[in-house]
Amino acid sequence: MAGEDRGAFEPADPGFEARTRESFARQGAMAHLGAALGSVQPGVVEIALDFRPEFSQQHGFFHAGIVATIADSAGGYAAYTLYPAEDGVLTVEFKVNLMAPADGERIVATGRVLRAGRTLTVAQFDVHVHKAGSATHCATGLQTIMRITGRQAVRG
Amino acid sequence: MAGEDRGAFEPADPGFEARTRESFARQGAMAHLGAALGSVQPGVVEIALDFRPEFSQQHGFFHAGIVATIADSAGGYAAYTLYPAEDGVLTVEFKVNLMAPADGERIVATGRVLRAGRTLTVAQFDVHVHKAGSATHCATGLQTIMRITGRQAVRG
Amino acid sequence: MAGEDRGAFEPADPGFEARTRESFARQGAMAHLGAALGSVQPGVVEIALDFRPEFSQQHGFFHAGIVATIADSAGGYAAYTLYPAEDGVLTVEFKVNLMAPADGERIVATGRVLRAGRTLTVAQFDVHVHKAGSATHCATGLQTIMRITGRQAVRG
Amino acid sequence: MAGEDRGAFEPADPGFEARTRESFARQGAMAHLGAALGSVQPGVVEIALDFRPEFSQQHGFFHAGIVATIADSAGGYAAYTLYPAEDGVLTVEFKVNLMAPADGERIVATGRVLRAGRTLTVAQFDVHVHKAGSATHCATGLQTIMRITGRQAVRG
Repeated sequence: MAGEDRGAFEPADPGFEARTRESFARQGAMAHLGAALGSVQPGVVEIALDFRPEFSQQHGFFHAGIVATIADSAGGYAAYTLYPAEDGVLTVEFKVNLMAPADGERIVATGRVLRAGRTLTVAQFDVHVHKAGSATHCATGLQTIMRITGRQAVRG
Repeated sequence: MAGEDRGAFEPADPGFEARTRESFARQGAMAHLGAALGSVQPGVVEIALDFRPEFSQQHGFFHAGIVATIADSAGGYAAYTLYPAEDGVLTVEFKVNLMAPADGERIVATGRVLRAGRTLTVAQFDVHVHKAGSATHCATGLQTIMRITGRQAVRG
Repeated sequence: MAGEDRGAFEPADPGFEARTRESFARQGAMAHLGAALGSVQPGVVEIALDFRPEFSQQHGFFHAGIVATIADSAGGYAAYTLYPAEDGVLTVEFKVNLMAPADGERIVATGRVLRAGRTLTVAQFDVHVHKAGSATHCATGLQTIMRITGRQAVRG
Repeated sequence: MAGEDRGAFEPADPGFEARTRESFARQGAMAHLGAALGSVQPGVVEIALDFRPEFSQQHGFFHAGIVATIADSAGGYAAYTLYPAEDGVLTVEFKVNLMAPADGERIVATGRVLRAGRTLTVAQFDVHVHKAGSATHCATGLQTIMRITGRQAVRG
């Protein structure tokens, strides 16, 4: 979907990759989970997470909330790559469909910007779970992200 | 909303509370986060989480994914209270609106069943963040949950 | 839910009710469907629609899209009641759960503002279907609405 | 997204196209709107709608609810193409992001199945608005659809 938009985004900040990696490194939640930032391109970001028993729900798979946490971050950082250097990002809302059990050793979430507006960005995210060499598309979602200009801290 | 349904649910299993608390205790993700199960009533469950630096996003508030993790669990367990003893629960999808920054010492998520169908349950969840004695309604969402009968492990 | 916020909203425009009714009357879609605006209070709006065969899906019930159309309008106008007189409203996104078949003579959608921000408003909507004197809660949803200030026509 | 799944679906009913077109023709809402069924492939369906003043919201664009109605139908029929001949389809829930004003002469919605489960199907839909020879991706969404086997009429 939205194939016509892929790769069409111009980052406002040429230093977008370093800036994105720095912000990611500062996030307590991402560091604590052990999440790793993969590819960082204009409007497209990948985040990977290896399984640990502490991420499990009652069946031993990745908890839906952990899947959503990684996915939300991937979408948010996809938006962030396109922002001017001084701006921040806040998730307004997201929706996720958990299409298959996240049963595997590793999940990889890819966030992609579908539309980059002045105030709001729409991103989609997809999560694949990797197990014994094969990948299953286990979750997909849509996300609305708000640009926080400069030092403005309040939402809305 | 749905005020006419509150309290109208009859749990299929009179031992629903003990069963819900046991399932919660087995969840790696909940235990690891340090989440605490509060009130467990038929169709209504509360989960609380105290802030730790490792839950933070870039502004130092609770990460949206952590908020969603607690909220998803509250809705899922709300559905679980109404199930027969041998059945399990899987989140099909959820949507969350993050209405205010989750800036505080503690979040409390309340999951409430709106409709309990044979296969699918619809729940809503609300999250309040507590800071210096006052509470802010920081997130709300809707969730579709699937009942997994007996030992059936596959989704869909 | 969000019971603490109900009735707490102050409309910026004391003429909000007349302004809302005028805007509703101008909407081609609402007039064409034969939808009727019911109660208009600060942050809460009701819209009703009587069944016609042309609203039906394959089972003869109200089509999900018709239910969503009425619900989206109820939420959008709920936001609109709180705006200054010169501002407009655009739906950014919404999500709806269709909890029961919309099988009946009439649907009534109620939109309620949960959070009124400077730029974004979050509303919830609920739809009841009326049949032979009883009402069933057939749909619920959440919506993000953007305020369009003055003559600004572009979104985002 | 989900590129790996496209074209991978085998319809259970070789007469899926004729069956889908017959069901579409029976829908009061689709006929009344003047919606036209375009391409019908296994798991992918297109529906088009030409603008009429009665579809407009307050700015003269296609109403968000009309966009959602067409999109919901496209996703639902995409699922329907893969079902056995005797089964029916019900939308459980959907979420739509309205990314740009639906300002144009015609909207075209494409529904695509992402995952076809035994009970639940996940579809995505995308809507483009056509104006003066160019197309804008104005809406995208995700949908959960339930299979209704045989003469079973109740949901859930």
